[in-house]
Amino acid sequence: MADPVNFYFDFSSPYSYFAAQKIDSTVEACGRTVRWKPFLLGALFKITGSKPLNAIPLKGDYCLHDWERLGQMTNTPWIIPDPFPIPTQAAGRAFYWLDEQAPSQAKAFALAAFNTYFGQGINIATPDKVIEVAEGVGVDGAALSVALQRDDVKQRLKDETQAAIDSGVFGAPFFMVDGEGFWGSDRMWMIKRWLQGRGA
Amino acid sequence: MADPVNFYFDFSSPYSYFAAQKIDSTVEACGRTVRWKPFLLGALFKITGSKPLNAIPLKGDYCLHDWERLGQMTNTPWIIPDPFPIPTQAAGRAFYWLDEQAPSQAKAFALAAFNTYFGQGINIATPDKVIEVAEGVGVDGAALSVALQRDDVKQRLKDETQAAIDSGVFGAPFFMVDGEGFWGSDRMWMIKRWLQGRGA
Repeated sequence: MADPVNFYFDFSSPYSYFAAQKIDSTVEACGRTVRWKPFLLGALFKITGSKPLNAIPLKGDYCLHDWERLGQMTNTPWIIPDPFPIPTQAAGRAFYWLDEQAPSQAKAFALAAFNTYFGQGINIATPDKVIEVAEGVGVDGAALSVALQRDDVKQRLKDETQAAIDSGVFGAPFFMVDGEGFWGSDRMWMIKRWLQGRGA
Repeated sequence: MADPVNFYFDFSSPYSYFAAQKIDSTVEACGRTVRWKPFLLGALFKITGSKPLNAIPLKGDYCLHDWERLGQMTNTPWIIPDPFPIPTQAAGRAFYWLDEQAPSQAKAFALAAFNTYFGQGINIATPDKVIEVAEGVGVDGAALSVALQRDDVKQRLKDETQAAIDSGVFGAPFFMVDGEGFWGSDRMWMIKRWLQGRGA
């Protein structure tokens, strides 16, 4: 069976949020599956010297407006959260811990976390809030609370972030299809064509 | 009659080249027209602190590959020219001089200039080459040669560049639809929806 398509994202990335709404259906329509891969965009930015979009002059204002417009045009709930951006260590650690036990539950958690932050504007930076979101999709909150303190769980997110960077990921959302990289939520049409074998 | 959609671009911008292939047909299908507006991306970069895409680590390599893939997927001839990027003063000055006399010829020249540079990989930085490209679409080369030396022709491109920046343009390609800005060659679908009144 073909490898899954890797979907790299940060829970605090608006364009990742929009991509998350449709990546599974897009890829599955081509007979493939998606593996979700949260990572820490801040760690990447330290290497590339990039900044969050809203911190860049001119581009920042445009993006704020673009996200709102994108929400309206794609019928996706959208609120610019305050604070934004936020640290996403807790959400990322929770994801990989869940992913080892129940990948589909991990994905449901990720989507719920995204929707809580960007759909409802609720800060998901703290472990407590992450646990609450996870409980909403049926996760054992007490077990997750313990897991979030574990060194190996913390290390896993660091390793995944490094692995993403080593794979050539330099922004979010980023997609890797059999070694072929695609950057940005607007690249769905290209991924589809690539999967349908009309790539080159 | 509604104002034209403004298409801001630099002759040395690959994504502008791809956008140039389809912006007229996209907008005209919605009953509107397009006004082409070349400007100097370098002047804008001085203000925003940006750099040409291929000069940015990681992103640069990705873009080189993305342009080639985009050419294949959209059946658009593509060669990464050497040198790249290039100064585009001569092309921009020629465009606005032509535009005052014959807008459709100016557009034909612009497309020919793009296709010469990115489709055939031929450097269009010099006045001589710009004149040759213009002659190919029926322009009087001797008259253009004189015009390219005129201070008012040089000033016009500076003024248009400043006007673009004042309008909120911060990259290329950039589109302005009744005061609404859209950035990037991947925003055609949004422009279409906006023009069809399904914007908000």
